[in-house]
Amino acid sequence: MPYINIKVTDEQVTKEQKQQLIVGATQLLVDILSKNPKTTHVVIEEIPIENWGVNGKQYLGTKK
Amino acid sequence: MPYINIKVTDEQVTKEQKQQLIVGATQLLVDILSKNPKTTHVVIEEIPIENWGVNGKQYLGTKK
Amino acid sequence: MPYINIKVTDEQVTKEQKQQLIVGATQLLVDILSKNPKTTHVVIEEIPIENWGVNGKQYLGTKK
Amino acid sequence: MPYINIKVTDEQVTKEQKQQLIVGATQLLVDILSKNPKTTHVVIEEIPIENWGVNGKQYLGTKK
Amino acid sequence: MPYINIKVTDEQVTKEQKQQLIVGATQLLVDILSKNPKTTHVVIEEIPIENWGVNGKQYLGTKK
Amino acid sequence: MPYINIKVTDEQVTKEQKQQLIVGATQLLVDILSKNPKTTHVVIEEIPIENWGVNGKQYLGTKK
Repeated sequence: MPYINIKVTDEQVTKEQKQQLIVGATQLLVDILSKNPKTTHVVIEEIPIENWGVNGKQYLGTKK
Repeated sequence: MPYINIKVTDEQVTKEQKQQLIVGATQLLVDILSKNPKTTHVVIEEIPIENWGVNGKQYLGTKK
Repeated sequence: MPYINIKVTDEQVTKEQKQQLIVGATQLLVDILSKNPKTTHVVIEEIPIENWGVNGKQYLGTKK
Repeated sequence: MPYINIKVTDEQVTKEQKQQLIVGATQLLVDILSKNPKTTHVVIEEIPIENWGVNGKQYLGTKK
Repeated sequence: MPYINIKVTDEQVTKEQKQQLIVGATQLLVDILSKNPKTTHVVIEEIPIENWGVNGKQYLGTKK
Repeated sequence: MPYINIKVTDEQVTKEQKQQLIVGATQLLVDILSKNPKTTHVVIEEIPIENWGVNGKQYLGTKK
């Protein structure tokens, strides 16, 4: 507790970027809600771009 | 807002079928709840058949 | 199989609208992927508006 | 895109703390992955403490 | 790690039943995959019956 | 109904272990809440170890 799930498109997120996301999300819960980092879990899921839609269209895969 | 997550077994869903799912799910939220399609996200997740169980048994992978 | 999860803000969605979302989402999976409606599950989750953020801001709760 | 789901126990998280979580999580995705904040969604879910278990026991509800 | 999410309809699940679900799900992961119970999280979510659909119909709320 | 989602790290979980998780999780809902196994779905998701963080660190991938 807590549990943070981050879903992004699968576009070459590096191992280092994942580590930075894990550090940042954990720290956020420590800073704002005084949660214990030892029981804070972060799970990153990378979704193929053709599986993500917004405004009724498949995502085109530019990073922004 | 809103966010729609569709989980199906991983059985050769084509890119065109995914696009149709995205269009249909987005339109549903527009039609029924007057949501803005520009902020409606659809995420399709394909699950390996051996990872999906119903009635206590692994899914066998016939489409129905 | 399949499983569809719809997350919307909690803004007086009626029982009838929920029924329409369930019918529409189920039919979508039948039409596009020939899934069996008897095993198609739809779960709607209503999120308090102060718990939903986009563009770094809490949602204000206009329907669009 | 992206979509961040934060699950915490339901222990009087204030509206201001939720806003801080939304700001922080959005900024994290901007900083690390250069994502567009306008399409970054954050959904916070508050779980009753008796519904959360760790180490085979119901959570007792101390904040840490 | 791991993380188990159990979604059931909201039909007067007691605190004791929730505890039994937490114990059972945790033990399952210990028995089958030798996971560490101390980092095994179980989150139970209770969904209003009108928000759950199967076979295109809202759930009627009999327990089975 | 119900729906059980089990997230574990992707560390060579065998088809047989997945079957055992499906049987055990389904039986748990039958035993504790008298749910109908025919409508009980179990979905196992395997997460790459570098995508799972706890205590602010990427998981190292020892099984415990």
